[in-house]
Amino acid sequence: MFNFDLQGTDLNGSARAGVFHTPHGTIPTPIFAPVGTLATVKALRPADLIQLDAKLILSNTYHLYLRPGDEIIRDMGGLHSFMAWDGPVLTDSGGFQVFSLSDSRIIDADGVTFRSHLDGSQHRFTPERSVQIQENLGADIIMVFDECPPPDDYEYVQDSLNRTHSWAIRCKEAQTRNDQALFGIVQGGIFPDLREHSAGFLVDLDFPGYAIGGLSVGESKTDMYAILDVLNPLLPEDKPRYLMGVGAAEDLVNGVLRGIDIFDCVLPTRLARHGAAMTAGGRLNMHNARYSRDSEPIDSACNCYTCEHFSRAYIRHLVKSNEILGHMLLTSHNVHFLLHLMRQLRSHILDGTVQQFAESFLALSAV
Amino acid sequence: MFNFDLQGTDLNGSARAGVFHTPHGTIPTPIFAPVGTLATVKALRPADLIQLDAKLILSNTYHLYLRPGDEIIRDMGGLHSFMAWDGPVLTDSGGFQVFSLSDSRIIDADGVTFRSHLDGSQHRFTPERSVQIQENLGADIIMVFDECPPPDDYEYVQDSLNRTHSWAIRCKEAQTRNDQALFGIVQGGIFPDLREHSAGFLVDLDFPGYAIGGLSVGESKTDMYAILDVLNPLLPEDKPRYLMGVGAAEDLVNGVLRGIDIFDCVLPTRLARHGAAMTAGGRLNMHNARYSRDSEPIDSACNCYTCEHFSRAYIRHLVKSNEILGHMLLTSHNVHFLLHLMRQLRSHILDGTVQQFAESFLALSAV
Repeated sequence: MFNFDLQGTDLNGSARAGVFHTPHGTIPTPIFAPVGTLATVKALRPADLIQLDAKLILSNTYHLYLRPGDEIIRDMGGLHSFMAWDGPVLTDSGGFQVFSLSDSRIIDADGVTFRSHLDGSQHRFTPERSVQIQENLGADIIMVFDECPPPDDYEYVQDSLNRTHSWAIRCKEAQTRNDQALFGIVQGGIFPDLREHSAGFLVDLDFPGYAIGGLSVGESKTDMYAILDVLNPLLPEDKPRYLMGVGAAEDLVNGVLRGIDIFDCVLPTRLARHGAAMTAGGRLNMHNARYSRDSEPIDSACNCYTCEHFSRAYIRHLVKSNEILGHMLLTSHNVHFLLHLMRQLRSHILDGTVQQFAESFLALSAV
Repeated sequence: MFNFDLQGTDLNGSARAGVFHTPHGTIPTPIFAPVGTLATVKALRPADLIQLDAKLILSNTYHLYLRPGDEIIRDMGGLHSFMAWDGPVLTDSGGFQVFSLSDSRIIDADGVTFRSHLDGSQHRFTPERSVQIQENLGADIIMVFDECPPPDDYEYVQDSLNRTHSWAIRCKEAQTRNDQALFGIVQGGIFPDLREHSAGFLVDLDFPGYAIGGLSVGESKTDMYAILDVLNPLLPEDKPRYLMGVGAAEDLVNGVLRGIDIFDCVLPTRLARHGAAMTAGGRLNMHNARYSRDSEPIDSACNCYTCEHFSRAYIRHLVKSNEILGHMLLTSHNVHFLLHLMRQLRSHILDGTVQQFAESFLALSAV
């Protein structure tokens, strides 16, 4: 279980195509995981995810712990059974959300005390508690409890890194289930030396996969890509690499070129609820009056359900009228767009043409 | 076109099973039409409607006239093309919505001037305008422009009936398309003599179908059923009969027993958005804490997608979290519930067992 088989690598670069084996099926990589915060990828049924050929979804420990509660989900047979999704699932550790509650949490060496964003009630996460909750949820891939610090404060990041590393050891020791792959999370902000130190420390602990956290949190794209370049040779080849919280198309392409295997982000589902459609040429704001009599699909090259059946005029009407179907059709299109992009990247890696594909894709999206 | 073929009638009563032929397919009756107010049955894709085996949907002239505008829909190829629904569609005349705007409309002999509920702008509907808008929308079944009066004010209803009848003649004369069945609408409140007069007047005009309006607007169920009993022998056997705005399960059963062929109502979709599930034994309020660890489906006898995949605990979680998927799954279940009930009624009519079926269904729902 949890073997990662490399099937092909880009001879002129670092892009990799592989498969990661989990108890709920095999994940072809590189892959994008749509986010189902509350045990539902917003506006998509499991049947729709299957039709979109999604191979991995992410759910959030912090949110599920608060609603409906991890013990309810455990008693209902775990996340897969609860949400009727039989494919692979990944949960984060709750760390990112808890540390985002900047006004209502206190960090100490042992863990974090925080107030719920729902009702202000007080709670406490420790590494052991995060693992326990994630064991109750029952995802195939789970994460160590880490701190996600402001990326550009060297002293703070250095200090935080020590905490994160000791918590990684504690999470590993706390794990009782052997059917969940616990990933380490490399932190270190935008500082190459701290990232190097973090990667080395975690690789020594020998996790079945490595996440890269603390990026896409406000730093420049140049800084993000530079850190990926630093980490690329340091992470073991035979373990999957997961870049957390990244979902812009150009970042997926650039991440894949730098050896990333797994991505997740709320971007496609959140943009959909704001009426935006993702395309290779950029985002379309479907509120725009220019689409009111536009009989073309969102993207005439796209073969998703939305683009095969509906005009921009109809989508605009739904979005303007705040109809649920507007959210459904745009979500389906945006998720398809990213999943299709990942399938193209994978196929071009195996064909040895990923550099050319990436170059032309990035040229188009930069227009 | 627009033939109505009776296939079976209840020998001991008035229930009828038939088929109504339209340019977009044949409608088996009795039938329930889900409502797609703004050219979308809320939270269902056309693919979902096909899976639910919906055979007719309704859309609202008043709402579509305001948003996105009937001329845009005409220019996009009509409602079927606009919403990507290739099956039969029925539009109302806009009368019911306009007359519901009690504080912002003025009625005269020629038509109604009203203010939009969206932006307060002034508009005017006449019988000719209503037909013109419905021709732009392009539904298979369209309605005469009628007044829906308060049901229990004899003098007002009598006065209104003269207007409605003269408008029915004008609608018939205004029709220019021959691929749309224009139905007359019987009015007359809760007064048997006015209903008789209205039915006689409209039957003389020889419409391809007859709607019964002005019921389910606040009168008692006894009054409603009494009026159906009055109209049953007066309406021609060889034309479909459509009871407008009725969707409670017991009313569908009682309507079918009184010779009704077509029903429509927002009830199943609206209840879903309020977190309520329809079952033969009554409605379940899915907000209820009693369902938080309930691993049973909404209705273990139901074979809809929702009941085949999801627990009450999961549905409750979605509803409590106001997740779009909660609206989707409950809408799908509720629409399935009514469509399945209508299929059962039809099959029992053809088998000669509809009285027994209705009796046991009504006994169960009265518990």
